[in-house]
Amino acid sequence: MSFLEKEAEHVEGFAKECAVVTHHRLEPDPAGGLRPAGKLEEPLIIRPTSETIIGATYAKWVQSYRDLPILINQWANVMRWEMRTRMFLRTAEFLWQEGHTVHATSEEAIEETERMIDVYADFAENWMAMPVIVGSKTAAERFPGAVDTLTIEAMMQDRKALQAGTSHFLGQNFSKAQEIVFQSEAGEREFAWTTSWGVSTRLVGALIMTHSDDDGFVLPPRLAPAQIVILPIYRDPSQRTEVMQYVETLRNELTAQSYAGTPIRVEVDDRDMRGGEKKWHHVKRGVPLRVEVGPKDIEKNSVFVGRRDQPKSVGLPRGEFVATVATILGEMQQNLFDRALKLREENTVTIDNEADFRAFFTPKNEEQPEIHGGFATCYFADEASIDELLKELKVTIRCIPRDQDASGGVCFATGRPATQKAIFAKAY
Amino acid sequence: MSFLEKEAEHVEGFAKECAVVTHHRLEPDPAGGLRPAGKLEEPLIIRPTSETIIGATYAKWVQSYRDLPILINQWANVMRWEMRTRMFLRTAEFLWQEGHTVHATSEEAIEETERMIDVYADFAENWMAMPVIVGSKTAAERFPGAVDTLTIEAMMQDRKALQAGTSHFLGQNFSKAQEIVFQSEAGEREFAWTTSWGVSTRLVGALIMTHSDDDGFVLPPRLAPAQIVILPIYRDPSQRTEVMQYVETLRNELTAQSYAGTPIRVEVDDRDMRGGEKKWHHVKRGVPLRVEVGPKDIEKNSVFVGRRDQPKSVGLPRGEFVATVATILGEMQQNLFDRALKLREENTVTIDNEADFRAFFTPKNEEQPEIHGGFATCYFADEASIDELLKELKVTIRCIPRDQDASGGVCFATGRPATQKAIFAKAY
Ligand SMILES: [Zn+2]
Ligand SMILES: [Zn+2]
Repeated sequence: MSFLEKEAEHVEGFAKECAVVTHHRLEPDPAGGLRPAGKLEEPLIIRPTSETIIGATYAKWVQSYRDLPILINQWANVMRWEMRTRMFLRTAEFLWQEGHTVHATSEEAIEETERMIDVYADFAENWMAMPVIVGSKTAAERFPGAVDTLTIEAMMQDRKALQAGTSHFLGQNFSKAQEIVFQSEAGEREFAWTTSWGVSTRLVGALIMTHSDDDGFVLPPRLAPAQIVILPIYRDPSQRTEVMQYVETLRNELTAQSYAGTPIRVEVDDRDMRGGEKKWHHVKRGVPLRVEVGPKDIEKNSVFVGRRDQPKSVGLPRGEFVATVATILGEMQQNLFDRALKLREENTVTIDNEADFRAFFTPKNEEQPEIHGGFATCYFADEASIDELLKELKVTIRCIPRDQDASGGVCFATGRPATQKAIFAKAY
Repeated sequence: MSFLEKEAEHVEGFAKECAVVTHHRLEPDPAGGLRPAGKLEEPLIIRPTSETIIGATYAKWVQSYRDLPILINQWANVMRWEMRTRMFLRTAEFLWQEGHTVHATSEEAIEETERMIDVYADFAENWMAMPVIVGSKTAAERFPGAVDTLTIEAMMQDRKALQAGTSHFLGQNFSKAQEIVFQSEAGEREFAWTTSWGVSTRLVGALIMTHSDDDGFVLPPRLAPAQIVILPIYRDPSQRTEVMQYVETLRNELTAQSYAGTPIRVEVDDRDMRGGEKKWHHVKRGVPLRVEVGPKDIEKNSVFVGRRDQPKSVGLPRGEFVATVATILGEMQQNLFDRALKLREENTVTIDNEADFRAFFTPKNEEQPEIHGGFATCYFADEASIDELLKELKVTIRCIPRDQDASGGVCFATGRPATQKAIFAKAY
């Protein structure tokens, strides 16, 4: 608790969602169950994030400008108490990667903050096939204690926004609170500049909500553990040898191909199970390509290929399939990205007045009231003045996009002159 | 808490080391600090391990023998309350990998338990260069709720034992406690068989305590992030261009070589820093090979090479060094293993009577009383009967080694006939 107390804004931001450990044992209670025992002198807070404890370490390590920069990255579970949880997206405990850096100059720390949000954007777009908007959070939405919070925001299929990763420029706030001080090249005592950045298992939720359909999960080929599953089909055991020989040859031909710089990953599912059930098993799990092989396919030296992003399976000559399989996977990766981008573009509007804003964020379809809205791009002058409107509509400012031609306009709500546009949306 | 309560032995084993969350907020206290608020109806236990919660999930997933086996592996932080902590080796919270499997048959679950301890032993010996003894824990040392706990035990340089990884055959204990029931191929309801296994960041401590010397860390080449660091040396800036050209060529020649199946990892440290200080930086961090290159080396087309496991650096013709670098790394990997194995063999004794046992585990060197003992291999008849002796000497049974010719003998302490030998040691 004494760690967390150090940075005032930080503790204020997290105080309402801290899990507090007060005891360190269990003992039998009279009713035959267990009860807490061994009360702690100072309660322990389960870290909601690790700036304060890692900052205390940096304060010990950093003496001179020669010690800088330092980067620590850790994978750790953290806990933020949530009243309403949602699988993958919002859980009290989550596994994440949190990076923390400390620098001699403001410029270098800002550069690091930007580099990391670009790393996250690259991963989201080029690996997860999930388009994102890169921008800054407004003051009210910023990480507690940060000077600037960069974010990547994605649109889910129900048109809600999901914050998928953040990178914070912390200025000297934490170094002042924690005395991270170094001797500069000129011999002066200076406070260091810090950053932090993270993504979590929330990205698994993002993947599901971006690409899944009524049949289940859809996996972008670059991320799929198995990019192809081969399903051998035979009625009676006498056919098994022939089919499995063909399957093994096919597997070898496919794994000899490369896609996105690595050998193609192929799985053969030879389990004893009904064909339809087995196929369904892999459809649900989102395997990009299913290849069915039975005696008839062998006769024609062909394969029967189902692409997870298309409804119908097609027969293809085996040689043609093997020669083009990397291209097919590449097309599928691009198609998933394009599909998600199209959804976002179709559901992004520019709004310059309150009436349109209210209409956009009010459900119209009575059967699916939860699917409505999208991203509204609006000029706004001042965060505080629109706070009540946003609360009423349950809308939040997702970010001030990095790429904008802010030639200037008027605030959609107050009509006052405004210089910046933001993305507004309902969000997870 | 209700999860943990299910398996009786399990909860008994962990009740004394559970961190208990009782509140979920902080509020200002009158003294100007913070105090816990938001009391929970049911206290939350921070998992010391996840058998109970993963078992509850398996109970939902498993219906038929067709659903089996299942394997879940997770990286997660867990917490076991410790009064006396020791960096890396024993910390209240630690990051580990925990795997959990569920099977239709006892045989298959036992096979999995053994497979995983072999995976850990292979990693310890062939990657960490740390020899280990594979064996079973005795009943008193077993994982709470396990039928059999397999362990890998290593000897640290101070001759203490370190348990470096465990794999548990849980029988049907957890499946009965949690109702993990499936319909067998014959159509009958049966309880499943489960296993769990894990290693933790304790292995970082094991690495340090196995190989480090007075100069710091020593990294086995197979694990080293950089296997070679090149240190360019020049007095005045005019020499820089020539030296860096030579260094870049050398770097390319080295990274074109492979060791242990991957391209050799080379780092160039061109920081502006005193030569001695820079060299020391990499010695302390245990980089396997340091290569110094200055104008004189360039004249002779040679390099000056320091091996972290040897005291003296040597000059070598550049071509010879490049051609043999993979061999050198391989020798160093083997040398570290051999050195550790020699230490263990020199400090392992066979003991058949209590007097020798007492003498072995009693410090003799007054200047370093903490370094004494080692591994004692002794026949023993019955764990309970030697319990007091072991407590008095602070010795534990590390394991009953898998590979032993247990032809039979007498218990070292009681003189009673005994059929199994165990490794006894002081331990971390
Ligand atoms: Zn699969
Ligand atoms: Zn280094």
